Amino acid sequence: MEKSKVVIVGTGFVGMSYAYALVNQGAVEELVLIDIDHKKAEGEAMDLNHGLAFAPRKMTIRAGDYDECKDAGLVVITAGVNQKDGETRIHLLNRNAQIIKSVVKDIMKSGFNGILLVASNPVDILAYVAWKESGLDKSRVIGSGTSLDTARLRYEISRYVKIDPRNIHAYILGEHGDSEFVVWSNANIAAKPIMDVVDTMDEIDFTDLDNIYRDVRNAAYEIISRKRATYYGIGMALVRITVAIFNNENRIMPISSLNDGVYECDPDVYIGLPVVLNRQGVHHIVKFQLSDGEKKKLQNSANILRKNLTDIGY
Amino acid sequence: MEKSKVVIVGTGFVGMSYAYALVNQGAVEELVLIDIDHKKAEGEAMDLNHGLAFAPRKMTIRAGDYDECKDAGLVVITAGVNQKDGETRIHLLNRNAQIIKSVVKDIMKSGFNGILLVASNPVDILAYVAWKESGLDKSRVIGSGTSLDTARLRYEISRYVKIDPRNIHAYILGEHGDSEFVVWSNANIAAKPIMDVVDTMDEIDFTDLDNIYRDVRNAAYEIISRKRATYYGIGMALVRITVAIFNNENRIMPISSLNDGVYECDPDVYIGLPVVLNRQGVHHIVKFQLSDGEKKKLQNSANILRKNLTDIGY
Amino acid sequence: MEKSKVVIVGTGFVGMSYAYALVNQGAVEELVLIDIDHKKAEGEAMDLNHGLAFAPRKMTIRAGDYDECKDAGLVVITAGVNQKDGETRIHLLNRNAQIIKSVVKDIMKSGFNGILLVASNPVDILAYVAWKESGLDKSRVIGSGTSLDTARLRYEISRYVKIDPRNIHAYILGEHGDSEFVVWSNANIAAKPIMDVVDTMDEIDFTDLDNIYRDVRNAAYEIISRKRATYYGIGMALVRITVAIFNNENRIMPISSLNDGVYECDPDVYIGLPVVLNRQGVHHIVKFQLSDGEKKKLQNSANILRKNLTDIGY
Amino acid sequence: MEKSKVVIVGTGFVGMSYAYALVNQGAVEELVLIDIDHKKAEGEAMDLNHGLAFAPRKMTIRAGDYDECKDAGLVVITAGVNQKDGETRIHLLNRNAQIIKSVVKDIMKSGFNGILLVASNPVDILAYVAWKESGLDKSRVIGSGTSLDTARLRYEISRYVKIDPRNIHAYILGEHGDSEFVVWSNANIAAKPIMDVVDTMDEIDFTDLDNIYRDVRNAAYEIISRKRATYYGIGMALVRITVAIFNNENRIMPISSLNDGVYECDPDVYIGLPVVLNRQGVHHIVKFQLSDGEKKKLQNSANILRKNLTDIGY
Repeated sequence: MEKSKVVIVGTGFVGMSYAYALVNQGAVEELVLIDIDHKKAEGEAMDLNHGLAFAPRKMTIRAGDYDECKDAGLVVITAGVNQKDGETRIHLLNRNAQIIKSVVKDIMKSGFNGILLVASNPVDILAYVAWKESGLDKSRVIGSGTSLDTARLRYEISRYVKIDPRNIHAYILGEHGDSEFVVWSNANIAAKPIMDVVDTMDEIDFTDLDNIYRDVRNAAYEIISRKRATYYGIGMALVRITVAIFNNENRIMPISSLNDGVYECDPDVYIGLPVVLNRQGVHHIVKFQLSDGEKKKLQNSANILRKNLTDIGY
Repeated sequence: MEKSKVVIVGTGFVGMSYAYALVNQGAVEELVLIDIDHKKAEGEAMDLNHGLAFAPRKMTIRAGDYDECKDAGLVVITAGVNQKDGETRIHLLNRNAQIIKSVVKDIMKSGFNGILLVASNPVDILAYVAWKESGLDKSRVIGSGTSLDTARLRYEISRYVKIDPRNIHAYILGEHGDSEFVVWSNANIAAKPIMDVVDTMDEIDFTDLDNIYRDVRNAAYEIISRKRATYYGIGMALVRITVAIFNNENRIMPISSLNDGVYECDPDVYIGLPVVLNRQGVHHIVKFQLSDGEKKKLQNSANILRKNLTDIGY
Repeated sequence: MEKSKVVIVGTGFVGMSYAYALVNQGAVEELVLIDIDHKKAEGEAMDLNHGLAFAPRKMTIRAGDYDECKDAGLVVITAGVNQKDGETRIHLLNRNAQIIKSVVKDIMKSGFNGILLVASNPVDILAYVAWKESGLDKSRVIGSGTSLDTARLRYEISRYVKIDPRNIHAYILGEHGDSEFVVWSNANIAAKPIMDVVDTMDEIDFTDLDNIYRDVRNAAYEIISRKRATYYGIGMALVRITVAIFNNENRIMPISSLNDGVYECDPDVYIGLPVVLNRQGVHHIVKFQLSDGEKKKLQNSANILRKNLTDIGY
Repeated sequence: MEKSKVVIVGTGFVGMSYAYALVNQGAVEELVLIDIDHKKAEGEAMDLNHGLAFAPRKMTIRAGDYDECKDAGLVVITAGVNQKDGETRIHLLNRNAQIIKSVVKDIMKSGFNGILLVASNPVDILAYVAWKESGLDKSRVIGSGTSLDTARLRYEISRYVKIDPRNIHAYILGEHGDSEFVVWSNANIAAKPIMDVVDTMDEIDFTDLDNIYRDVRNAAYEIISRKRATYYGIGMALVRITVAIFNNENRIMPISSLNDGVYECDPDVYIGLPVVLNRQGVHHIVKFQLSDGEKKKLQNSANILRKNLTDIGY
């Protein structure tokens, strides 16, 4: 296996929470930080380096330039801008697409041939842009998708049914956004369909489960209203994706990937689907048997994403 | 949470593989080894102590006596004898039941009030004996059951379908022995029924899956024919059970527990069933919807176990 | 051992970097966040909770109130304010001392009887204030002291001599600030005095070592000039102190402690000294044989700290 | 960095304790077991594989042949025979040297170009034989040396002075055997010479320290008298050496290495010395300033080892 080298583009809260989690978990051997504000990237690398003495494993951390992408196994894009007063959604989307386009151009110029992971929002749109602009195979470009939403869902169900979250096997698919949905028809606790659990336990109520979904969908808003941004959860989700890749785990995770006709919805979108992840990226998309209602929700999500892409010329 | 103190009764291969795994994983704070051959227990404690300098966490390890059980959170029984030439199965069973009876008496005399985990074989029978003789609540006495069999199954399915074992949600239930069976009707890969996977993937064949089950059931024989005993896998399974208990995980694991009427089979046996494990022991047994065939297999397993118990006067 | 429960007062960058590192390392069982802005503490707890699904261990995290300190093993104070334009140093010090005083009062009202760790700056002054105001034994109140400075030093020496940082045994003592100094007379690489290494290796030069010290002393300024604040390194240093305490390690760490006559300098100051840390706090201060020059530097540091304390009425 | 692949030659207690510790700590990616009794190696691989489901990291484990050494980063030799009744020491030594010679020949035939670590006893003699027979550079062939003895010493001193073992910086050097000795002149607790500690603490007595050395030197005998062999401690010491190599740590460890004139004793022996270990093997030997008495002890150790080597024709 090659050296586990990660390059992070963008040292904002998300990028740095991911970097700090990598250091605390000793997840990779080499980490390079890129930012337009090179001084900031330097300061961040210094701050992280001083924690290394307390980390579980030897690591190399430095600020760098795009040529560092050349031999990186994984480049994670967290760069992006926020809405200005009075700016339309499409205008903001265009600005962020331009940033991704420019960043991807610089990455590819280095001779990069690893996996590209987009975490900037709206993640499904921007992962698609990154894929198109990079010219890389669809298996090499992914977005964080609904990985964090799914983790939030499992955590909340776990607290509700009082069972270890690792026994909760449920997925949120679709757009990482308002149209995302839970695949209740395929949700299990251990090897027991969650619908069975609802039927047989008096204390478990589907309305409560549905409320959990709503809370999860709105979690980002709730956090943002309290601390202006959300970054710790996504930082750790990105580490999990990173480990699945470098350890060649063949792990099934709900991330944003080119649908490409696997599910019955617009194939020409990046959207949150369960994929098998390994050292080569997306090995394949796992096809769940969705209920009719769930199919419609996925189609709706895909349509929203396609429209957004068309709006910005993709 | 109280101190995480484990007492191991029996420093044979299984007991010591468990102890060594505990040290390597830094799983508990205090470990006491008890053996009729106290000198051997002392030697084992010395050998483990010398590894502590390379362990992930501070631990206290020593050889001890049954009074050490008084404040232990968990006592693990691995003691037992092997078949003598010409000895009948029942005679051997009686001898091992006597050993458990005597060990449990000594443990209870200390004022022990923790969880009792039996790993000696036949584990379902001996866990029942330990429960009866201890007078402890059924929630406080468990056997390792089909935990290792289930892990073996997942590992082999994982290799067959080339998916991370943590995405394989399948259980072996029943007697830890020849009558054990896979709950295929509730087996999933991620959130997808394994039967669906068989139906939709050309390369996956149910005959192969069934052969995996047979290999798993016979794994102990295969290992024993090559190295005379099997202990590393069970050692790590026991650590996993230990962690679920001390971390109060509410983890669902297939272990040997008093059925007590939850499943439609003889209630008066200890048998491998999925239970929710936490700091108090068995919180409850999870009830899967078994197919008719699976129900029959479970009943068969329970009948075999009940007969064995009756044969030795329980 | 009691439950490992930590309460953090102040959810600014330092407090949250510490919290996030605790989660990523699975270092404790329970974490409570307190902030004057309770909504912010709530948002931070939500964000951290969503990462739990990817953490190495089960944890409970919530926003709370000072009554949560009652059964906490460790309360970490990271609260504090920054200099206003035109504000004198003494005025700022007074404001921060008032904050600590008020926070400590609220903590003690809960019936708190654990260990108090101050990370707010200037840490030696504020740890002293916390000790005085708490009425706790000196062994129960500590400051982060020169723990991070020492780690930075070891990391930089390690890079310079190309030896694992865990083989670099060197300490920065004194004020966590400009008057801090390296105890070169007792600095070793493995079991070899660093002065010997300098004498026998052509490529190692004492001037370079001294420059490393200067860089370390100025590291915070360098980072602040690039990213406005420094928090990742200190976050991980606080986790290391936390682990030494809860695992009852008897670990020697350079932290801020009441000198109390152990070293030949003003006894009535909190100052960075090597102490043995365990579940009870400071077991004792380790007395190095300082050179005459080092003794003078320590006295100078102590005098500066005493003067500051006198200036604010302590 | 290349794939972390380890091949173990010899699946006796030492080899398997090392293998099991590797699995429990998730220390490498790939592990191959070689034994003359191939069936046994197969059984051991099966037993370990069943524990993988409970291991911290994905690993590949299998029984194999010497051609597996071709792309291994590390080959660990644990093979060897025990004394027969009436057999002389030299005769036994010759038999074991022949085994190493034959094993090394098979390893080298594969095209092996990694690091060779010998754990078979007498380790210093057999590591020398392995070096000579392999034709590899001296930096690529090492013996476990006094790594375990040193760890035992630190652990016992730690218990005696009640300080974390990671703060005890003391080394046992020389032959891994009766002539080994502690470098008390360079032994420190944190950055404080242990002789200073003895002088200033009433409760610490040099006679006790010397007794600790004697106990450590005799530890193997004590364990063997109780459990016939010693393997857990050495298994974990081997993992520590393995990690220092694959993580390229530049870690200083006391292992058996060709002296080659660095210390004032016979240069043509493998002997326990502090070396800097990294991905390339021994980077260099660290030269401590030994006292005159310690120099004599090292010379004595080296003379004993040289005589043994001469006796078997090296």
